[in-house]
Amino acid sequence: MRIEDLFWIGFVGAVVALVFAFVQRGKVLKFSEGTERMQKLAASIRQGANAYLRRQYKTVFIIFLLVFALLLVLAYTGMLDNWYIPFAFLTGGIYSALSGFIGMKIATSSNARTANAAHESLNRGLNVAFSSGTVMGFTVVGLGLLDVTVWFHVLRYVAGYDAVQIAQTMVMFGMGASFMALFARVGGGIYTKAADVGADLVGKVEAGIPEDDPRNPATIADNVGDNVGDVAGMGADLYESYVGSILATFALGASAFAADGLAWRAMLLPLAVAVVGVLCSLLGSFLIKTKENADQRSLLQTLRKGTYSAAALAAVVCAPVSYLLMGSFRAYIAILIGLAAGCAIGYFTEVYTSDTYKPTQTLADATETGSATTIIGGLSLGMKSTAAPVVIISIAIIVAFLAAGGSLNTADQALYTASFGKGLYGIGIAAVGMLSTLGITLATDAYGPVADNAGGIAEMAGLGAEVRERTDALDSLGNTTAATGKGFAIGSAALTALALLVSYVDVVKGKTAALDLELTNPAVLVGIFVGVMLTFVFASLTMSGVQRAAQSIVVEVRRQFRDIPGIMEGAADPDYASCVDLCTKGALHEMVSPSLLAIIVPVITGLLLGPEAVVGLLGGVTVSGFALAVFMSNAGGAWDNAKKYIETGTHGGKGSDQHKAAVIGDTVGDPFKDTAGPSLNILIKLCSTVSIVFSTLIVNCNLTALLG
Amino acid sequence: MRIEDLFWIGFVGAVVALVFAFVQRGKVLKFSEGTERMQKLAASIRQGANAYLRRQYKTVFIIFLLVFALLLVLAYTGMLDNWYIPFAFLTGGIYSALSGFIGMKIATSSNARTANAAHESLNRGLNVAFSSGTVMGFTVVGLGLLDVTVWFHVLRYVAGYDAVQIAQTMVMFGMGASFMALFARVGGGIYTKAADVGADLVGKVEAGIPEDDPRNPATIADNVGDNVGDVAGMGADLYESYVGSILATFALGASAFAADGLAWRAMLLPLAVAVVGVLCSLLGSFLIKTKENADQRSLLQTLRKGTYSAAALAAVVCAPVSYLLMGSFRAYIAILIGLAAGCAIGYFTEVYTSDTYKPTQTLADATETGSATTIIGGLSLGMKSTAAPVVIISIAIIVAFLAAGGSLNTADQALYTASFGKGLYGIGIAAVGMLSTLGITLATDAYGPVADNAGGIAEMAGLGAEVRERTDALDSLGNTTAATGKGFAIGSAALTALALLVSYVDVVKGKTAALDLELTNPAVLVGIFVGVMLTFVFASLTMSGVQRAAQSIVVEVRRQFRDIPGIMEGAADPDYASCVDLCTKGALHEMVSPSLLAIIVPVITGLLLGPEAVVGLLGGVTVSGFALAVFMSNAGGAWDNAKKYIETGTHGGKGSDQHKAAVIGDTVGDPFKDTAGPSLNILIKLCSTVSIVFSTLIVNCNLTALLG
Repeated sequence: MRIEDLFWIGFVGAVVALVFAFVQRGKVLKFSEGTERMQKLAASIRQGANAYLRRQYKTVFIIFLLVFALLLVLAYTGMLDNWYIPFAFLTGGIYSALSGFIGMKIATSSNARTANAAHESLNRGLNVAFSSGTVMGFTVVGLGLLDVTVWFHVLRYVAGYDAVQIAQTMVMFGMGASFMALFARVGGGIYTKAADVGADLVGKVEAGIPEDDPRNPATIADNVGDNVGDVAGMGADLYESYVGSILATFALGASAFAADGLAWRAMLLPLAVAVVGVLCSLLGSFLIKTKENADQRSLLQTLRKGTYSAAALAAVVCAPVSYLLMGSFRAYIAILIGLAAGCAIGYFTEVYTSDTYKPTQTLADATETGSATTIIGGLSLGMKSTAAPVVIISIAIIVAFLAAGGSLNTADQALYTASFGKGLYGIGIAAVGMLSTLGITLATDAYGPVADNAGGIAEMAGLGAEVRERTDALDSLGNTTAATGKGFAIGSAALTALALLVSYVDVVKGKTAALDLELTNPAVLVGIFVGVMLTFVFASLTMSGVQRAAQSIVVEVRRQFRDIPGIMEGAADPDYASCVDLCTKGALHEMVSPSLLAIIVPVITGLLLGPEAVVGLLGGVTVSGFALAVFMSNAGGAWDNAKKYIETGTHGGKGSDQHKAAVIGDTVGDPFKDTAGPSLNILIKLCSTVSIVFSTLIVNCNLTALLG
Repeated sequence: MRIEDLFWIGFVGAVVALVFAFVQRGKVLKFSEGTERMQKLAASIRQGANAYLRRQYKTVFIIFLLVFALLLVLAYTGMLDNWYIPFAFLTGGIYSALSGFIGMKIATSSNARTANAAHESLNRGLNVAFSSGTVMGFTVVGLGLLDVTVWFHVLRYVAGYDAVQIAQTMVMFGMGASFMALFARVGGGIYTKAADVGADLVGKVEAGIPEDDPRNPATIADNVGDNVGDVAGMGADLYESYVGSILATFALGASAFAADGLAWRAMLLPLAVAVVGVLCSLLGSFLIKTKENADQRSLLQTLRKGTYSAAALAAVVCAPVSYLLMGSFRAYIAILIGLAAGCAIGYFTEVYTSDTYKPTQTLADATETGSATTIIGGLSLGMKSTAAPVVIISIAIIVAFLAAGGSLNTADQALYTASFGKGLYGIGIAAVGMLSTLGITLATDAYGPVADNAGGIAEMAGLGAEVRERTDALDSLGNTTAATGKGFAIGSAALTALALLVSYVDVVKGKTAALDLELTNPAVLVGIFVGVMLTFVFASLTMSGVQRAAQSIVVEVRRQFRDIPGIMEGAADPDYASCVDLCTKGALHEMVSPSLLAIIVPVITGLLLGPEAVVGLLGGVTVSGFALAVFMSNAGGAWDNAKKYIETGTHGGKGSDQHKAAVIGDTVGDPFKDTAGPSLNILIKLCSTVSIVFSTLIVNCNLTALLG
């Protein structure tokens, strides 16, 4: 059997993942949603989330149509490599949207069920919430594999393309998914944090009522936000990383190994690793079973047992797979490096953001001298926390490159040039390795918002302190496992973006012979400047978007407290819907300009200064975006946990001045960690895929070429 | 007469500048220091500043000796290009320290005199303060020209070097000045902000006493801080930029024009531009004369008339000079671009930080919803404000490159390669043009802290509200002119760093043939990662240094309020000296590790991954450092001015909740704009000069070469 006929294994992985997700969904839905009040609350959240996503998709659909039309024009004028790209742009967007939508659907069906199950026992609560997470995790990988495999077969059997053609075409297919993911992350991120910040500022700080209090008009919007931001946004985001890493590795593999006749093999390997990852994740998820009276600590161990077993199993199974396909263990070492780097970044994320470690405790100390020092402390912690991930990614890049056969010794020019592509393939396959067990790591990540929502419902439905304690325990467990998930998300984003950057250079070199990509070329330098600036401006726009949307919520909540009589005594219901509506409008309005930046800036830079500047821009965006994302995510996480740490009774506990300072830190951290930070992960990949898609246009029409 | 014998003009510029500075010093000292109380206060500030600088120089001296010894060892083992470098390292450090010291000396002699003169009239106050600023401005340029010219003549007539040898040796001479400047900026910056934050947190926020109240034990330390941070630090900083830009342009000019036989001419041009700048600055400073009853607005116009006339005059005179030396107006256009870019960046700095424009007013609006939104708003404003400077610098780079004869059209490979060096020379000469009128722009910048101190003395000596109002007017005028000064400082830092980066590549290419500087080389990419990370970690360390030092001041001030009876009634004097001492110790302790990073990280990166990674690192440091510096400076400036804007009576005015939120923003902004931001400007240049000095070592001993 020929290797190129073995790509059907992608379908196997896809079907297994999707069937498993469907089974888990059935399991979750069998649980009861609890009391009538709980059902009503869950329904309002579901309604709000549905309404938001529907309107978000409508807005995005219009933008997609415009870009689709633009792509058709480009294809017609010969400025696009082929006619498949516009259609693949659409399917990527649809699948990515679907990943978010399904994740959101199951999450909004699981929150009341989790609260109700937690009413019975902590263990049952975990069970429901985690199963809901697996639905999302396996849907994402299932749809991702499906998208990749379907298009592969279309290009292979309908278009009759060879390996390099397929790879170079498919690397452009990531754009639709990235674009959709960016809208979902930015829009959802603005929604969730506007609601959260708005609810906290008036409710907690001004009116002095607790979090999730039913008297707070913004409380439903806050819970809706968890679903549209943390769940739907994350689903679209990781769908995009997953697919992006496979496609970039296709491209690098095909071009590096074409001369050796190993192109199909080099392309099959990432797909095979992904399928292995699905199966191992599935097995790992079966290990997550707890005793009836387990405490929080043992729950964490159980979750870890599941994820680590899946990773270890994948590490073992990938060895023979890599050897069989590539005839050596070179690529395998790169895969291992990817897995290890993901774990290591996750570990340092935890060190910098968990209150069981020194940094967050020191940040809590800073609350003793007020909110200014709390802010300075958090910013400084976040900036310092970039060191470890950068060093880890740097080591991963170098080791993966060397392991896969690359040479860094430029003195031996012949060897250096000949081995260069193979080394780069190592970087791509490391990203695939890092994301191979995404099914289960995403499950442990996605269950957090469900537990958070369950806590909200428990509070609003008056289920009593014990249930709230249990959902809080689940939530805080989720925060810990989410740290690892974030490590994988951010590490894979950086590696994938680099792989895409290199693919871009490959694509451009096929179109023009004359390129000076040396760092001393002013066009490259200016590109780096613009790329770095783009990440700062993008982060700024998402943050100011949150702020503007939050301020409108503040005004509305204040108005309701003033105008609706009896609201504070619980005699009258607040108007939840108006807050949901305001958040929706605000988020949709604020999401457009930062998202469009990611398309417009690379294209304009290219049109003005040519492809060299675009390469510089991609380098600048990737590196600066990575550092900013780590900085903002970790600062936000540390502020959040410093506040929770104080709430356990240290530094004066809840209600003290120290606690107030910590709440201010947490509020600043919200748009950091849940809007700007994760959106930057997508930005860096979207810029690359946009550049690849528009490469023919830019190579042929740019000012420097015209000047010369 | 031969061109290479015309470099004595540097001595002319140096002597004119230094004599003028000395005359201005005499003029200032003729004014009276006022009442006995004022003299006593001025003496304590002088004492504190002297004591700090003495100890700072002692600490730095030890580190300098260690590096000097290391350089001697390298020279001995053949890992350094020649034996002059260690000694030039020392003189650079000494001259830079001297610039800071003289600036501080005159500033601490002028503060009481300014207060006393302001007692008589606003105009007289301006007169004293501005004269004090000119002493500093002209001392810096005079010493800079002296250092450059002396070494040029030593190398030319003692060592007998040719143009390229002189240029390639002298480009290494910036390291001493950069190193000293970094210590001065970081140490001084930590000192001044620790005192400021500490004094504010306990005095203003906890005890509710006004700024500069004599009952506050940290108030003298606060005033000392203005002198050691804002004055001495700034002097050392700009000395380094000034010398660095000239030396980098020497190197680029000599290598680009050697083949045409124009090397001496290309080297004489930056020196001639600098001398022209000195003379024009001198003439400009004579224009700064005001009518006796001038208001604040007309004072600003007067100051602007001085600086703009100097710049315009320099622009006119440089035209024939450039044409005579280079035979065309190519370099001249680059000089104009440099001047224009400096003004443009300064303009946008003002737009983003002055309360007469929208951004700062919007930031003041954010105080309505509390301190969290104030912080988010300021961070978001700062990040957004990176856009304009990056675009301006990008345009300046491209236009200067093209104007000076470079081509960006890589398709015509022969032309591209042949013209490349000349284009880069344009970038260097643009930086020199930007800094040519430093004498007067620095004067308008340096007078601000003097006015600030004068206000403090007026308050402490009880000179009455009218005098305080006048010194406040002078101070706020200083803030506006300082915005322009910052534009020049930051723009020239970026251009100089790029020129140094390119010189580094030149130097390395002379030592090894095999280099792959393309952005796709993993070593280059990892270098960029490390460079970007370095800027974040550096900013973090300086901020946490401020925070730790400030916390120790808070504890001490609280202790004094508690333990010294009668302090709050004004019956007993607080122990000012102990706060001065604590700040000194804290600053010296905290300044060492961030400063050493700038040396250690590039060298270690080079030793591990070779010169390609160092080039990447320099690119990453420069671009990310530029963006971070703009972000932090502008966010800090905007918070400061939003607070002042509220104090004029908007948003509830002084004492309102909005004002409290603004004070928190201002406190966060203090280490942003006065410690981390300006230090980053130096970091980016120090990394380059360090890399150049250690280039032989790194080319010969690095892991990738050994592996290969």
